[in-house]
Amino acid sequence: MRKIIQSLAGSQIREVVNSAIDRPDILKFWFGESDEVTHPAVRAAAMTSIEAGETFYTANLGLAELRESVAVYMARLHGSKVNPIGTSRIAITSGGVSGLMLATQMVVNAGDEVVCVTPIWPNLPQQAIIMGAVVKAVPLYAEAGEWKLNIHKLCEAITPFTKLLLINAPNNPTGWTLTRGEQQTILEHCRKTGTWIIADEVYERLYYEPIDIRNPHGCAPSFLDIAQPEDRLIVTHSFSKTFLMTGWRLGWLVLPPSCLEAMGKLIEFNTSCAPSFVQKAALEALRREGDITPPLVKHFKLCRDTLVPLLQALPNVEVQAAKGGMYAFFKIKGFDDALSLAKRLVSEVGLGLAPGSAFDLAPVAIGEGWMRWCFASKDVERLAEGVGRLESWLKTQE
Amino acid sequence: MRKIIQSLAGSQIREVVNSAIDRPDILKFWFGESDEVTHPAVRAAAMTSIEAGETFYTANLGLAELRESVAVYMARLHGSKVNPIGTSRIAITSGGVSGLMLATQMVVNAGDEVVCVTPIWPNLPQQAIIMGAVVKAVPLYAEAGEWKLNIHKLCEAITPFTKLLLINAPNNPTGWTLTRGEQQTILEHCRKTGTWIIADEVYERLYYEPIDIRNPHGCAPSFLDIAQPEDRLIVTHSFSKTFLMTGWRLGWLVLPPSCLEAMGKLIEFNTSCAPSFVQKAALEALRREGDITPPLVKHFKLCRDTLVPLLQALPNVEVQAAKGGMYAFFKIKGFDDALSLAKRLVSEVGLGLAPGSAFDLAPVAIGEGWMRWCFASKDVERLAEGVGRLESWLKTQE
Repeated sequence: MRKIIQSLAGSQIREVVNSAIDRPDILKFWFGESDEVTHPAVRAAAMTSIEAGETFYTANLGLAELRESVAVYMARLHGSKVNPIGTSRIAITSGGVSGLMLATQMVVNAGDEVVCVTPIWPNLPQQAIIMGAVVKAVPLYAEAGEWKLNIHKLCEAITPFTKLLLINAPNNPTGWTLTRGEQQTILEHCRKTGTWIIADEVYERLYYEPIDIRNPHGCAPSFLDIAQPEDRLIVTHSFSKTFLMTGWRLGWLVLPPSCLEAMGKLIEFNTSCAPSFVQKAALEALRREGDITPPLVKHFKLCRDTLVPLLQALPNVEVQAAKGGMYAFFKIKGFDDALSLAKRLVSEVGLGLAPGSAFDLAPVAIGEGWMRWCFASKDVERLAEGVGRLESWLKTQE
Repeated sequence: MRKIIQSLAGSQIREVVNSAIDRPDILKFWFGESDEVTHPAVRAAAMTSIEAGETFYTANLGLAELRESVAVYMARLHGSKVNPIGTSRIAITSGGVSGLMLATQMVVNAGDEVVCVTPIWPNLPQQAIIMGAVVKAVPLYAEAGEWKLNIHKLCEAITPFTKLLLINAPNNPTGWTLTRGEQQTILEHCRKTGTWIIADEVYERLYYEPIDIRNPHGCAPSFLDIAQPEDRLIVTHSFSKTFLMTGWRLGWLVLPPSCLEAMGKLIEFNTSCAPSFVQKAALEALRREGDITPPLVKHFKLCRDTLVPLLQALPNVEVQAAKGGMYAFFKIKGFDDALSLAKRLVSEVGLGLAPGSAFDLAPVAIGEGWMRWCFASKDVERLAEGVGRLESWLKTQE
């Protein structure tokens, strides 16, 4: 086995989860997943397709109808005369993570330098590491629980030797969201250095700022709003979060048109295609987007606005409501080892959280000491119950 | 974009298919896929799972129940005291192709030397090329239409510098099948050179030799029959062919137990997991294996034994019935450019075949001049109709 594969970082979240196997009493907020089942109409569409016998291979890039539907959706959110988004820029992938891996395979040679803004979902840097790249972290910083980017530090780190920038905003785990100005600066800088940007924007619709003229669609700022089609930019998306379809494993990429043909080949060689019936379900999800997503976002906002004040009311807890995402990222003074804290909370009060250190890229330890709480809970009461468990545990620690 | 990705070989099969878009009159034998829908009970199992709301992430390595069921199936075919096959060696993958890519990522560093027996399904060498490897072809040879391996030439090509051997038998496209003796020689040689073997054995059940004491299960010889658990051997499998589930995108790997943990990480970083409901369908397929696979193999044998004699009866055609697989691989004297022949047959008589050159790895052109005909046809008459078209076309060429 390759040395690099032997030494791939294991998931600290899995480590916490595995420490609690067979414990039905755990309140689970550790995964990035709502506990709500996919919309019945979306499930029905898949069942109809299976019933009809749609059990054959499909096109590498996805069903034409779905690509068209995704293009219309993306054009509505981000399209402009300067940056048209049509099917010639859309590839359907077997999940957001597969889309990220495909994009990485497209641009990263072994030995290339990659810059990555952390904390971040570990899959992004690990994919580049699998391809043999050298990945360096540029950390965000927290100010009174609010996460911020030092844009000068980031631009300094990206040089003409940097093949790729990996960036995820709204961010998992912190909820940090890029501003339009920051995106502009990053894009202009990367144009100068010739650096590719893989922007993981899967949380763009989980955005809680008021709907107004600058935010007409309820959508975080996207690189697509300011880029041109042939910029070295690949934006990755997923049906998982916005449409409650985690288990379906379906996502999409928005690419430069000149990359589409090669992406079709990469899909052939990685997964060949996504199942027809999963794509039919996604088509129905997009058709019902107005019924599914706005109520979901409203509910997640309620979740956020329930959880964060309860956490803030605890002694020694540092946390702010983030503009986007589905996580509260918080710190308790005096508890600096996140993995150990996560394991103790599971074992001692049945509270399942993810350690922030899971989102670090060694040697930079910026998430260490922080905890990620996924607030995407169907039942808001569960959040209060979880905080209750944390509070009672903290009292035993005094 | 990486130069290597820009220059990835495109699929010649797709090139032929694309030349015939919007032609409903084509008889299609070009893809490696039966035209028969998945068994109703298998589809029903998926629908039940979706109805029940199983729409969440699952374990990276697959559902415990499915891994157990696959292990029992593989142990029945290949297990022994020397080579036990339990769940500690089984990983569920999002299709056979994803399994091959994961196995390749596990063992191949950029710059490594890989040896590959050709003709072969192009995905295998292309995956190694994506990882930055240098892949060299060792070609089979044809004797009166029967395909054979020069085992000495293969062993000569595999040196201590060879990281990996890619081998697929029963073979797509030729139907060539490894003998037990050849497998033994290859395994012993690779033990000496320290070379990994990725054996694509997805066609093992599509094997048409008589059931007897040496072939009790109707299954081609497998490296698993002779290897030990910790041999450097990864065997890849798929539900696609044996269970008529091409469009479901589900497969599995049999690995050394020491590789399982790292494989779980690679799955996390490539696809995370396969959908629950697809795995439930596969579980039902394995439960009904006795109802599904033996009749399927019997039918495919009828297809082979219908098609091959009809082809042999044509003037100047060289072809033999292969022991395994689902293809007739044949050559027509005087037509040396397979891609051009494939395009002409589509355009002039509506016969859709795959050019043998699609299965070559440059610079070795062993499949060139040959044609692949997938005989997995629900309606055997279609095969005769196809041969009729070929025959009438050949007459116009005299």
